[in-house]
Amino acid sequence: MNEYTSQPDLYAVIMAGGSGTRFWPASRASRPKQFMPIAGGSAMITQTVARMEEMVPIERVLVVTAAHQAEQVREALPGIPDENILREPESRNTAPCIALAALEIARRSEQAMQIVVPADQVIEPPDSFYATVKAACTEAGDGDCLITLGIKPTFPATGYGYIQAGETLRTHDGTPVLAVDRFVEKPDEETARGFIESGGYFWNAGIFAWRTDAILAALNQHFPEAIAALDNVGTGKDLDAAYAGLSSVPIDIAVMEQADNVRVIPIDYRWSDVGAWDALPEVHPPDADGNYAVLGQDGLLINEDSKGCITWTEDDSVVALIGVEDMIVVRTENALLVCPRDRAQDVKKIVEQLKQKAPRFL
Amino acid sequence: MNEYTSQPDLYAVIMAGGSGTRFWPASRASRPKQFMPIAGGSAMITQTVARMEEMVPIERVLVVTAAHQAEQVREALPGIPDENILREPESRNTAPCIALAALEIARRSEQAMQIVVPADQVIEPPDSFYATVKAACTEAGDGDCLITLGIKPTFPATGYGYIQAGETLRTHDGTPVLAVDRFVEKPDEETARGFIESGGYFWNAGIFAWRTDAILAALNQHFPEAIAALDNVGTGKDLDAAYAGLSSVPIDIAVMEQADNVRVIPIDYRWSDVGAWDALPEVHPPDADGNYAVLGQDGLLINEDSKGCITWTEDDSVVALIGVEDMIVVRTENALLVCPRDRAQDVKKIVEQLKQKAPRFL
Repeated sequence: MNEYTSQPDLYAVIMAGGSGTRFWPASRASRPKQFMPIAGGSAMITQTVARMEEMVPIERVLVVTAAHQAEQVREALPGIPDENILREPESRNTAPCIALAALEIARRSEQAMQIVVPADQVIEPPDSFYATVKAACTEAGDGDCLITLGIKPTFPATGYGYIQAGETLRTHDGTPVLAVDRFVEKPDEETARGFIESGGYFWNAGIFAWRTDAILAALNQHFPEAIAALDNVGTGKDLDAAYAGLSSVPIDIAVMEQADNVRVIPIDYRWSDVGAWDALPEVHPPDADGNYAVLGQDGLLINEDSKGCITWTEDDSVVALIGVEDMIVVRTENALLVCPRDRAQDVKKIVEQLKQKAPRFL
Repeated sequence: MNEYTSQPDLYAVIMAGGSGTRFWPASRASRPKQFMPIAGGSAMITQTVARMEEMVPIERVLVVTAAHQAEQVREALPGIPDENILREPESRNTAPCIALAALEIARRSEQAMQIVVPADQVIEPPDSFYATVKAACTEAGDGDCLITLGIKPTFPATGYGYIQAGETLRTHDGTPVLAVDRFVEKPDEETARGFIESGGYFWNAGIFAWRTDAILAALNQHFPEAIAALDNVGTGKDLDAAYAGLSSVPIDIAVMEQADNVRVIPIDYRWSDVGAWDALPEVHPPDADGNYAVLGQDGLLINEDSKGCITWTEDDSVVALIGVEDMIVVRTENALLVCPRDRAQDVKKIVEQLKQKAPRFL
């Protein structure tokens, strides 16, 4: 554990509820993105937990996941105590997920700090992240604010919400904490370009830090149905019934955009949510021809006049590309995807078609 | 057997020596194109033999193949007598192949007619082909000429030699027999276009008809080394040694371009040598989106804005194409090819790279 990040009462909450259809056919209903080794090596969730374990002991790492994925979580994370795997009967977006985790942590330690992260993001280098978390713990340690991390935009993304930051309130060991002027829903490209040019805008990455009592107070104020439904679950209440009545809503809309005590800590080191196949270059370096290949152990890419291609295979096959540019090529045991990089979002249309025509491939 | 094509002394010679690297990865060193079900259904060689069996009994169908492929020929053609499979120790192009077959047939019947065809072409409808063969047998039945079939060009192909035909010598039941003015080596596209515009030019398809004594006489005159080497093989001579000293040369260059008794019978029905992946549309109809898919029995093509694509799989996998046009996509057990249709000839460059880097994929 990292000496300067270890807080005496810090919990990590890993949100692992994603279904990951954008990585079809490598991600399946039975293997969402967080269980894929997208960044190389182990599954993303395993890497995320490893990052957390540098800051908190495993007993204080909680994973919130879909009930039907709980067994996979246990397999991917053999070290995690079973009582730290929180099982959602069905996905209700991040607000109920965060409420569930906060109520569980409150039963252990009401004033515990939390760092809340999605299971399927890449954030590097670790030391920079630990410094950010430490600053967040310092800033939010007295329970009077909610921290969201803001990613410095590297391109005019239309797939993220933005945070417009205000004045710099403080710095902790060189890490600034900014006021939040407003949250902005996913913009069009021109608007996004304007944000980057004007500066002071950050991507809203879904990474949060707060004291448990602070987020519970905010939930009570802005999303009371979640607390009403989930409080005392397990001691007489049934979680399935509690979830069935809950709205599906992200924490940003339910709480962050409503609360007046939100502050942002910008991060300008490497972050990626690896949202779809076209994001693979964010986590894998290109070869000499500018192609990005993630192959089976004895797999091979043979290239003839091809560049900018993203290739993913899971077996020891050879992939031969002739004269193709900026193409995504994915081969799995029983499926094959060919798609230009700029159509990566349309993989979900394939998933939709398969739901109708051949769900055996989902 | 077809009543009007059955000649009392007609033999069919099927040349099955191709290595078929242009259909990598579906064709392999161990499974050249003639053993692939390229036109659907059974292997091309099986379909070719079936076509011949409409004209001659199986006892008069000879297959010339590479010695190392003889076992595959026997498997593909269980009905063929073993003595009708002629095994070439190594490939020496078509002239030695034709000499070997002619010498074998001569031992059975010196004046037998022959129809000589490659194992890996599609020619339809059968009745039209039988009518052509019947006319060829009539024309060449007295042993004074060599017949080559000329395919009426459908586009300015640069991959075939051409035959410039001369006057119409005769017609047999409506089938014309033309004189040959000259053979032309593979032309450039502009020249080929000129051939089509001027008319009277035909593709040289490698389909021949002649009497056995006529081709042997022509070989004796124009390619005597083949007869000297191969005559009496098996009765004291060793075929391996005989082949080792032979030149590798096509029959067109060795004999047809030299002989003065060559005549051409044009065919204007459907013919394809399915030379590479881009020729698959010549033997498979497009689907409603203009894509050509040959899939495993329970395989599936899912299309989103893709057209003109050629897809070949051999298992029950799903292939998803998003926004790709005129692309060749081939998936086999341990290989994947993605290549634009107009680069299909470059598949052989992949084969060359694999010879160096990973021959296990050949």
